[in-house]
Amino acid sequence: MKATGVVVEYNPFHNGHLHHLTETKKTSEADLVIACMSGHFLQRGEPALVSKWARTKMALAAGVDIVIELPYAFATQHAETFAKGSISLLREIGCESFCFGSEDGGLSAFEKTVELILNNRSAYNASVKNYMKEGLSYPSALSNAFKDLEGSEKLIDLSKPNNILGFHYIEARNNAAPDLKAFTITRESAGYHDEHFASPSIASATSIRKNLFDPEQEESVINRYIPSATHGILEHYKKEFGGYHRWENYWPLLQYKIMSSSPSQLREIYEIEEGIENRMIESSKSAISFEDFMKRVKSKRYTWTRLQRMALHILTNTTKSEMNERHAAPSYIRLLGMNKTGQQYLNKMKKSLELPLVSKLSSADKNDIHLDMKAAEIYSLGLSSNEVKKKLLHQEWSQPPILMG
Amino acid sequence: MKATGVVVEYNPFHNGHLHHLTETKKTSEADLVIACMSGHFLQRGEPALVSKWARTKMALAAGVDIVIELPYAFATQHAETFAKGSISLLREIGCESFCFGSEDGGLSAFEKTVELILNNRSAYNASVKNYMKEGLSYPSALSNAFKDLEGSEKLIDLSKPNNILGFHYIEARNNAAPDLKAFTITRESAGYHDEHFASPSIASATSIRKNLFDPEQEESVINRYIPSATHGILEHYKKEFGGYHRWENYWPLLQYKIMSSSPSQLREIYEIEEGIENRMIESSKSAISFEDFMKRVKSKRYTWTRLQRMALHILTNTTKSEMNERHAAPSYIRLLGMNKTGQQYLNKMKKSLELPLVSKLSSADKNDIHLDMKAAEIYSLGLSSNEVKKKLLHQEWSQPPILMG
Repeated sequence: MKATGVVVEYNPFHNGHLHHLTETKKTSEADLVIACMSGHFLQRGEPALVSKWARTKMALAAGVDIVIELPYAFATQHAETFAKGSISLLREIGCESFCFGSEDGGLSAFEKTVELILNNRSAYNASVKNYMKEGLSYPSALSNAFKDLEGSEKLIDLSKPNNILGFHYIEARNNAAPDLKAFTITRESAGYHDEHFASPSIASATSIRKNLFDPEQEESVINRYIPSATHGILEHYKKEFGGYHRWENYWPLLQYKIMSSSPSQLREIYEIEEGIENRMIESSKSAISFEDFMKRVKSKRYTWTRLQRMALHILTNTTKSEMNERHAAPSYIRLLGMNKTGQQYLNKMKKSLELPLVSKLSSADKNDIHLDMKAAEIYSLGLSSNEVKKKLLHQEWSQPPILMG
Repeated sequence: MKATGVVVEYNPFHNGHLHHLTETKKTSEADLVIACMSGHFLQRGEPALVSKWARTKMALAAGVDIVIELPYAFATQHAETFAKGSISLLREIGCESFCFGSEDGGLSAFEKTVELILNNRSAYNASVKNYMKEGLSYPSALSNAFKDLEGSEKLIDLSKPNNILGFHYIEARNNAAPDLKAFTITRESAGYHDEHFASPSIASATSIRKNLFDPEQEESVINRYIPSATHGILEHYKKEFGGYHRWENYWPLLQYKIMSSSPSQLREIYEIEEGIENRMIESSKSAISFEDFMKRVKSKRYTWTRLQRMALHILTNTTKSEMNERHAAPSYIRLLGMNKTGQQYLNKMKKSLELPLVSKLSSADKNDIHLDMKAAEIYSLGLSSNEVKKKLLHQEWSQPPILMG
């Protein structure tokens, strides 16, 4: 059985994801699709709208055959580490290929880009440094340095988020999994960060979330952009757990954590450096919401996303030493769900896997899963009643992989 | 002008306190009474019902002439350190005497008790150790060891909380302020921990708080036990800040803090030792309220009060090193309020004070007031809206001493 992989967040699963999934099946000619999905917290440093379990159900309902979890140590990182972790897991679980969505499309452009940077590494790095000295954020500096490098031969626009990820997927593939075949599919219509609906059936997850949190929006609008299974799963989650997860739910905890910490305690947290801890402590005392806090801390030097990831690591109390111990390479494969095809594939594959396949948390190595367990605990605190907090936390321990169909 | 001192919490100020105040004035024949009062957090490891400012107004309304703050490093400690800090501050501010309430009354019994223990220190300590090995809590072991020591000559019952405090007041006076004259007044009717009303006009603060939090109780019942000024100040606070402070308000923060900390991080907190951190981490995951948490952690080895103080130091993130740096002796006198008599007294005294008199936080030594400032920040988070949290926190910085009359 030939497996192909996708790297996803599904926050929530929408028609754009469905398009990517259908095209992936067509292009790769694989027998099954394996999704490597972020857990409760996401690459932009945000809590997922609904739990990893609800999002696994969305994926299976749409035709993904196996869902495995991208651990916290990779899922909540800048693109390079995020890509390294996910490509490594797709290889470990036996994928022959993987397929990513991008703004520009065209695989050879990505491969040439990686090659061009590799061949000009020191000039490129120097150029990035210079742009940062001029006050640009890291991603803008990367993108500008690359524009200088490519000259008149236009390859890809490295200021676009999915292109950046694609670049790092190819880089990670070249480094750690050279036999893994890559495909890319041009994303339909909606930009990653778009807040407004532009196409009749495809919208960005950002605009869908915005709509879900807006009490004045009609439900029927959203249903044009998400499969009916996603709709049902979202409704069910809201009913079962009393609401969705968003940063504002965690603001009282983050504020308390920052306010009660000393600067040196905050400097032990992953990504906290260069005095940002002092700015955060001061801002925590005056801010009246998470958004207000972020606006007070924001400066040209840091992107919103990078600051959000810092806030997330503070919230989960993830220290530099905890993270550095774990983000070199994944040490386990956490199985979240599968259908019959997926189960058949795993039964054949299981014995040849080099990493432990974790189905039940209780039987996993406690040190391996430490960060994911802590993330699940903190994620549960974003719900509004003690009963549902406890229920969600209990699910993390007791939930076997979801089997669908 | 002759000043006498009292050590108080006024949580809230009630008729029993009024009785003590009246008797203190009579017995001491002083020109004014200075109250050394705990700030936002109290000796039993609890948040005060209302802020230090509201409680200062209650004190001044009842006839106290000066209110100074017992800093966090002393106010939230076992009886010995609590007494050491408060007696030291009363001496520093120039009191000639002090007057404490006790269950047994009779100063000579206290003095004899201190002497008896001092003269038999090693036998007494060995006996305490033995009782603790048998599984008794520290206070019970102290009280039993003393019963053995006093033999047939009955002095005071060291299992009663105000007697324990009185014992330590005398001990602290003997050690650090031998010229400070001591008086004691027998407490009227209500035991410290009594939850029910027993006397027609005097009730314990515990029973008054219980009544205040009980939505089914008639207001008129409480008014029999508190002066009308207290009543007005409580009502005003509730209206201004949206409610009273209680441990349950801080439970989500405490749960988050314990859940997200590693055992070694918790062991850095003052008073956390002997593996209690593991028990706390486990209990934080299953508990659905502060009370539930405390019941899960409680064992014969620890009194409820001691565990509550541990929980408080965790909540305020007060480390062993922060506390050990500060609890040897107070390094400043924080003035919370005064009336005209108090002002007159301070004008005369000011120049001869050895410790800095802090009227405005902004002009104080930041290292001195660090723990009190942090306590005020955390205390404000127990309110329900962001606006009133900010307001209360702002008050801590901007509020000059309250001047009444």
